[in-house]
Amino acid sequence: MQILIVHAHEEHHSFNAAMKNLAVATLEEQGHRVVVSDLYGMKFKAVADGEDFLERRDKSYLKRQMEEKAAMELGTLAHDIVIEQQKLLAADLVILQFPLWWFGLPAILKGWVDRVMTMGFAYGAGMRYDQGGLKGRRAMLALTTGGPESTYTDTGMSGSMDQILFPIQHGILYFCGLQPLPPFVAYGPAHQSDEQRRAELARYHQRLLALDTLEPLPFHPLAHYDERGQLRPEWLT
Amino acid sequence: MQILIVHAHEEHHSFNAAMKNLAVATLEEQGHRVVVSDLYGMKFKAVADGEDFLERRDKSYLKRQMEEKAAMELGTLAHDIVIEQQKLLAADLVILQFPLWWFGLPAILKGWVDRVMTMGFAYGAGMRYDQGGLKGRRAMLALTTGGPESTYTDTGMSGSMDQILFPIQHGILYFCGLQPLPPFVAYGPAHQSDEQRRAELARYHQRLLALDTLEPLPFHPLAHYDERGQLRPEWLT
Repeated sequence: MQILIVHAHEEHHSFNAAMKNLAVATLEEQGHRVVVSDLYGMKFKAVADGEDFLERRDKSYLKRQMEEKAAMELGTLAHDIVIEQQKLLAADLVILQFPLWWFGLPAILKGWVDRVMTMGFAYGAGMRYDQGGLKGRRAMLALTTGGPESTYTDTGMSGSMDQILFPIQHGILYFCGLQPLPPFVAYGPAHQSDEQRRAELARYHQRLLALDTLEPLPFHPLAHYDERGQLRPEWLT
Repeated sequence: MQILIVHAHEEHHSFNAAMKNLAVATLEEQGHRVVVSDLYGMKFKAVADGEDFLERRDKSYLKRQMEEKAAMELGTLAHDIVIEQQKLLAADLVILQFPLWWFGLPAILKGWVDRVMTMGFAYGAGMRYDQGGLKGRRAMLALTTGGPESTYTDTGMSGSMDQILFPIQHGILYFCGLQPLPPFVAYGPAHQSDEQRRAELARYHQRLLALDTLEPLPFHPLAHYDERGQLRPEWLT
């Protein structure tokens, strides 16, 4: 397999970096080819704006999706976006490695999504969810939290982790056609002992060795929805 | 009231900009004082990194929360962060105005949260949710979507809007002590006629006039949770 790891932590000695390094070593040892987009190291531009288009189709009014489509056709998309898109196309599996900040992606990683997942590339008319532009590929979130696992439940203070990750796993990964594998969550490594952190890395190591055996999350394919985007009656549980 | 509008759309002629302009005019007409943080106009730095601290307490290892606390005490937090914090402290109501991108905040607005909501300012030990650093203030999301309202339900393709906004309304606004008012969502203005868009702005105008009558979303106060962060039995429904 070819695997793309998108890494979003600045500190080289962080637990996130340790997870990323472990993934590179483990997956390469398994014979996979691993490419890392180290967003902080690359100083990746986080903000989607008009400069993402080398030429503007409409200079008087920025309508992003229209410019994205035009730039894809004309080859005028910013170079750093094109490079990330090529990495995605070449990948069989994409791992997003990040600390959960404010119950979501750090801005640098959200900006990678905002800028790289352009219309006409990652999605379009009839081209989303199982029919998304990146279909045939899998993806996995690998993240750390600040708080303990006990708070991430339906009756916990943080809310359930499934609910918190839904906009990312369903709304980003699956929307683009990537089949999301169950996420790997390391809860509160900053509050753990070295021994506990080593055990967490060992647990991640086992997960990385078992990637082939994992079933993607059971999201509905596009065909299960009617023309108004509602689940057809036979799929309501 | 003093009202802070944090605006996250680059295009001055966008529907988001029209909503922002309408809010400024309407609220000022009501006698409120309105301050706008136009993040694109300000070229607000979106990426949280070591440069947010004029001096680093630990130069060999970046532990963000520790540096935030230290920088607050020493007055060494980056100037653009301090300015936004002062605007928040002066505000009675905060409106976040943004297009829902990938079912979340645009990176420039997520970065505003990542950088401005520092530990010791917005939250800390025992200082979160109803006890958060910004308690006594209200907040409201004002957003646009690409897709139609019919898809934003429990059985719709996008998932329920409440679920999608939970990480923002509960995990960001309420976490910091801001009481979230019901969000105002304009669904798919890009696909509407001018007449429909005018009707949506009229609906937003009514909402702005009714701000005083709105009940905040019914999230649980900190005291409803036990020491493991679980809802106490008497609050389970």
